[in-house]
Amino acid sequence: MRLTRDEVIDAASAIGGRVRRTPVAEAAPGVWLKLECLQHSGSFKVRGAFNRILAADLPAAGVIAASGGNHGLAVAYAARALGIRAEIFVPEVCAAVKIAGLRALGAEVVVTGAIYADALDASRKRAAETGALELHAYDQREVVAGQGTLALELEEQIPGLDTIVVAAGGGGLAGGVRAAFGGEVVVVEPELIPTIHEALSARQPVQVNVSGVGADALGASRAGQIALDVLQDRATSVLVTDEAIIEARRTLWRDHRIAAEHAGAAAYAALLSGAWEPAPGTTTAIVVCGSNTDPATLA
Amino acid sequence: MRLTRDEVIDAASAIGGRVRRTPVAEAAPGVWLKLECLQHSGSFKVRGAFNRILAADLPAAGVIAASGGNHGLAVAYAARALGIRAEIFVPEVCAAVKIAGLRALGAEVVVTGAIYADALDASRKRAAETGALELHAYDQREVVAGQGTLALELEEQIPGLDTIVVAAGGGGLAGGVRAAFGGEVVVVEPELIPTIHEALSARQPVQVNVSGVGADALGASRAGQIALDVLQDRATSVLVTDEAIIEARRTLWRDHRIAAEHAGAAAYAALLSGAWEPAPGTTTAIVVCGSNTDPATLA
Ligand SMILES: Cc1ncc(COP(=O)(O)O)c(C=O)c1O
Ligand SMILES: Cc1ncc(COP(=O)(O)O)c(C=O)c1O
Repeated sequence: MRLTRDEVIDAASAIGGRVRRTPVAEAAPGVWLKLECLQHSGSFKVRGAFNRILAADLPAAGVIAASGGNHGLAVAYAARALGIRAEIFVPEVCAAVKIAGLRALGAEVVVTGAIYADALDASRKRAAETGALELHAYDQREVVAGQGTLALELEEQIPGLDTIVVAAGGGGLAGGVRAAFGGEVVVVEPELIPTIHEALSARQPVQVNVSGVGADALGASRAGQIALDVLQDRATSVLVTDEAIIEARRTLWRDHRIAAEHAGAAAYAALLSGAWEPAPGTTTAIVVCGSNTDPATLA
Repeated sequence: MRLTRDEVIDAASAIGGRVRRTPVAEAAPGVWLKLECLQHSGSFKVRGAFNRILAADLPAAGVIAASGGNHGLAVAYAARALGIRAEIFVPEVCAAVKIAGLRALGAEVVVTGAIYADALDASRKRAAETGALELHAYDQREVVAGQGTLALELEEQIPGLDTIVVAAGGGGLAGGVRAAFGGEVVVVEPELIPTIHEALSARQPVQVNVSGVGADALGASRAGQIALDVLQDRATSVLVTDEAIIEARRTLWRDHRIAAEHAGAAAYAALLSGAWEPAPGTTTAIVVCGSNTDPATLA
């Protein structure tokens, strides 16, 4: 069954006290920025992480995930907040500063394998041994429902909201937003990582190549089925160039003093570059979804 | 006559469409951050600048101010928005990046004199010649009233707000907030620049020494009389160490992804360091008042 708004509403009550209700800021008449970049752990990913953990019968071994990026940070953050064990598997290419960040959150970090897929395989084997709860980055029902809680906040924060514009990797955030929200949903991806775009065309997940500035956060090479089921025929797919993403990120800092990572600026890039235009007289929310970036690169 | 709430209300209608209604974010139960760091030009100073300019009969020569810092940026921003000329006088010590920032906003920059006081003198002589409208950084009635509009927004954004905590240099922001707001006002300064603190003790502006991390923005060596008149006997004065300011700024970035300059973190430092504590059960707003900082220094 397709993910429902009710599941997102349930997720919102489950995670309510645990995540920040991030503020919105008006960037232009009728255009609002949802500052999810100010969320715990620096991205929306804690929403799904908390919802998945709180919905589970928690094993003694705690939780396990593979990711040196925002998903890993979010799982580590949620586990610490709930006082449970987290094991995070990262590939050998993972930057030392990310490993340090995960450790600072109290996670046990296992560095293994050349690339992400290897770390994921290793985490699965380990979970089969220990019985730890696995958290997928985007293709688990509770994860997608958790991400969707952002849309419920937006409905309350911006009365008369018509459209939500949101970046996608595997589609967890976009799918959750689509399930929750009654208005239009615009899904933005880099031209260099058209994961959802290609899946919507093919009407099923397909393998895509991954490159460019958004790859560290938007680099899922296959769309999630749960997201695809809600997005199919019910969302507008838009692609943006890396140049547009870089320019949007610079604008967010220069004109708004908002610190965003490239993935966090992708949705705004669709508007600023003209790749997508709101219908006249409508109200739009642009999700600025992540801020895990070296601030030295903002200016 | 002491600055009144009505004057601040008038300022709010005058500048309404010109400044951002900056968002608030809950940092802890009952503790809100007012994200004035996201304001146009990177600080609250545009509020006073717009109000002073819009209240005046504008001379053909436009406006003039002395400041290489946030006041200068705000005057340049407001002048550009209103399509009028701005001349900004800065001392020779002014960093090239600040001069470039002022020029990028379309201001004519005059570099003159060894220190700020020299640039101020030169700007006054020039204003006497050209008839340009002078904008003082904190001791003009319309400037103080403009800064106070921030408190009116807070009242609307946080129902039941008890206390506003705000940093002070010459006291323009603190004075405006005090004039506008019915609740408690806490005025925070670095121990190394106790301008308002000493003035409240002496019951008149006195000359203080200026040093430390907040000096570029909080470095007024004499309190404004307009601010002092409203603050005397009606505000709590709190001093914080430079270490507390540095730590608060780091916390704002690490835990909230909010980019603040040192002055912008001073009010939060009072809370985090324990130099000031809210009464149990009350609701507090901490003003994060500026973000004109090199982002490379945030982490
Ligand atoms: C900042 C940011 N934006 C967007 C995404 C994409 O999320 P999803 O895979 O749910 O589409 C991610 C995933 O890591 C992210 O970290
Ligand atoms: C960021 C910031 N905070 C506080 C102040 C102090 O303002 P005031 O002189 O009105 O007290 C200034 C003044 O430049 C500032 O730029």
